[in-house]
Amino acid sequence: MKLAVVGLGKAGLPLASVITDSGFEVIGVDKDKKKCNNINSGKNPIPEEKGLDELIIKHGGKNLIATTKYDDAKECEVFIVIVPLFTDKNNNPDFSIIESAIRGIGKIIKKGDLVVLETTVPIGTTEKLVRKWLEEESGLESDKFYLAYSPERIMTGFSISRLNEFPKVVGGVNKESGIKAYKAYKKFIPNLHLVSSARVAEFTKLIEGCYRDVNIALANELYKIADELNIDFYEARKYANHEYCQIHLPSTGVGGHCIPLYPWFLVKELEKREKYKSTTILRTSRVVNDEMINYWVERIVLECVKINKPLNEIKICIKGITFREGVKELYHSRNLALARLLVKKGLNVFVFDKLFFSEEIEEMGLRFIEPKDADLVFDCFKLKIEW
Amino acid sequence: MKLAVVGLGKAGLPLASVITDSGFEVIGVDKDKKKCNNINSGKNPIPEEKGLDELIIKHGGKNLIATTKYDDAKECEVFIVIVPLFTDKNNNPDFSIIESAIRGIGKIIKKGDLVVLETTVPIGTTEKLVRKWLEEESGLESDKFYLAYSPERIMTGFSISRLNEFPKVVGGVNKESGIKAYKAYKKFIPNLHLVSSARVAEFTKLIEGCYRDVNIALANELYKIADELNIDFYEARKYANHEYCQIHLPSTGVGGHCIPLYPWFLVKELEKREKYKSTTILRTSRVVNDEMINYWVERIVLECVKINKPLNEIKICIKGITFREGVKELYHSRNLALARLLVKKGLNVFVFDKLFFSEEIEEMGLRFIEPKDADLVFDCFKLKIEW
Repeated sequence: MKLAVVGLGKAGLPLASVITDSGFEVIGVDKDKKKCNNINSGKNPIPEEKGLDELIIKHGGKNLIATTKYDDAKECEVFIVIVPLFTDKNNNPDFSIIESAIRGIGKIIKKGDLVVLETTVPIGTTEKLVRKWLEEESGLESDKFYLAYSPERIMTGFSISRLNEFPKVVGGVNKESGIKAYKAYKKFIPNLHLVSSARVAEFTKLIEGCYRDVNIALANELYKIADELNIDFYEARKYANHEYCQIHLPSTGVGGHCIPLYPWFLVKELEKREKYKSTTILRTSRVVNDEMINYWVERIVLECVKINKPLNEIKICIKGITFREGVKELYHSRNLALARLLVKKGLNVFVFDKLFFSEEIEEMGLRFIEPKDADLVFDCFKLKIEW
Repeated sequence: MKLAVVGLGKAGLPLASVITDSGFEVIGVDKDKKKCNNINSGKNPIPEEKGLDELIIKHGGKNLIATTKYDDAKECEVFIVIVPLFTDKNNNPDFSIIESAIRGIGKIIKKGDLVVLETTVPIGTTEKLVRKWLEEESGLESDKFYLAYSPERIMTGFSISRLNEFPKVVGGVNKESGIKAYKAYKKFIPNLHLVSSARVAEFTKLIEGCYRDVNIALANELYKIADELNIDFYEARKYANHEYCQIHLPSTGVGGHCIPLYPWFLVKELEKREKYKSTTILRTSRVVNDEMINYWVERIVLECVKINKPLNEIKICIKGITFREGVKELYHSRNLALARLLVKKGLNVFVFDKLFFSEEIEEMGLRFIEPKDADLVFDCFKLKIEW
């Protein structure tokens, strides 16, 4: 069995490496030529991913060949697509990257091949859009190839252990596709479960993200309530939580490519069906999380009252602008959004992040500062205001 | 150490029994004379509570004396209050039962005694209202007695194991009261934690209830979405859930004395402070849960379409009207509310519940039916419609 993995990003590369390490030849397809060259010479482009260095050194350029050309994968029998899906400013999914990857595969697949999508997508994407694109490009009827969906469940930094330990689901667009994909994946995913359809597999992933988003929103709401009531939220949370109670941690909101997008996939689909009231918790939670930056602006400004300087002279340092601590990624980062919101309000705002050089900060149109040189520092990850 | 437990209901009696079983003399105070007589003659009034029969047989009328008179408890040093708190139709707390219990104790407490409230209450109840009532009745200044809060965390059917195993918190209205209550409780509660104040202890209990309510609302919302998308919610939930994802079970809503009330305690307090936006998730979840009965009416009526009879002749059986399966309690029962809503809509509705005789059903103004005699049965606990 020879496999292709399309997309060698934070989700795709760990998966491609784990498959290779299970004894299979893998062709990795990615549009980034420099990244491909690095992988082929044994250099890991995601150093923060535990255990990935060793796998890339061991397999890169040998059993794991990275390439920018779909044609190099034409001898594969299994094609796994794990590329990003973004949303536009109205929170509608933009399928262009997935479509391009699927059409690339469509040009090379043969009768009997298996295509598995791993990107988190709206319900029905696999059985409708992906099937259609594959049919159009390959000229094959859809009963001539197998098509399934198996959502990635990685978390940057822990992806390899997740692939080896976490439950993973797979579902086909028909019964044969499900069984075919289950048998193929079972060779490299130990904790694998076949579900009744690609749609169920898609839904499984989305509701996990919704659970996370709603529970972070709840934690943020309870944090604000505790603040108003002059109660230490963390002390109460410590003793409230037990086997049946898992109150999450508060934050500046939810960023990154994943959780902030997934609830919209369900909300938008239900809107199309004129079922607006069926998604009130999901929508409310999105708003609560996105509006947390307004709460933090207020908290920061109120803290400035204690500093004996004109407000516009107080050097405010926003410390930590990535969406998650330790991951150099700014997509939908609420910490970055908080810094920009403070700038917009006319405050004297600077930024510090140990993952960014001062030049990188300045290229974003923001000003760099060492925390020690600021009058007030807001630590976005610890939620601490210090001055 | 001799203790009084005021309120011998589903929370108070298991606690009183556990304390007695730890080797202490307990006076139980309850306004229900018949219940007191039963307890004193070794008869357990809550047979569904696992392990309680044995404790009542062993201690009832001996080391656990039940009485209707506060005066019988005047030699106690520790007074625990565990009585219900209801809300009015505007969801504001009605403190009358707690006030009466506290004033009853106020008449008999002596210098150096300890009073602990266990009822779930709005933030500040212990340090403000309870303290005031005790001062007024006893004529003692509040530094002459100890006052603390330790929320009950029982669940009918599992209360004794919860008292023996679950983490329990206690917090005083001042440092001395916290320490005094911690030392007393430590003698019969193994997993006990002292928190910094009665307010933190109050908050700990409320946020646990809020977590539950919001997560049930989320489960209900995801269930409705899955239904609309023709996806088996339970199949997806099974594989979505893992260590970090705990999607709850859907239902007809949330009933009983506990969870449906607690979010309002926080919502109403924040409203007083004109912080309406700080409780949007809590309020939305309450509405989603309470409105689930409308969703089930729609589902039931749509199922009637398949039965070849005039709609007003179809005998609909609502099976299970208690708020929770196996507990004979109707307070804020959404299943009962569902039956009444169907009646109001003019449908031909009957009720069955294995915990109620037909006469009891009829006394509620509803009609009894055996499920086998109905055309359509909605099982409120299994959420199954069968015909």
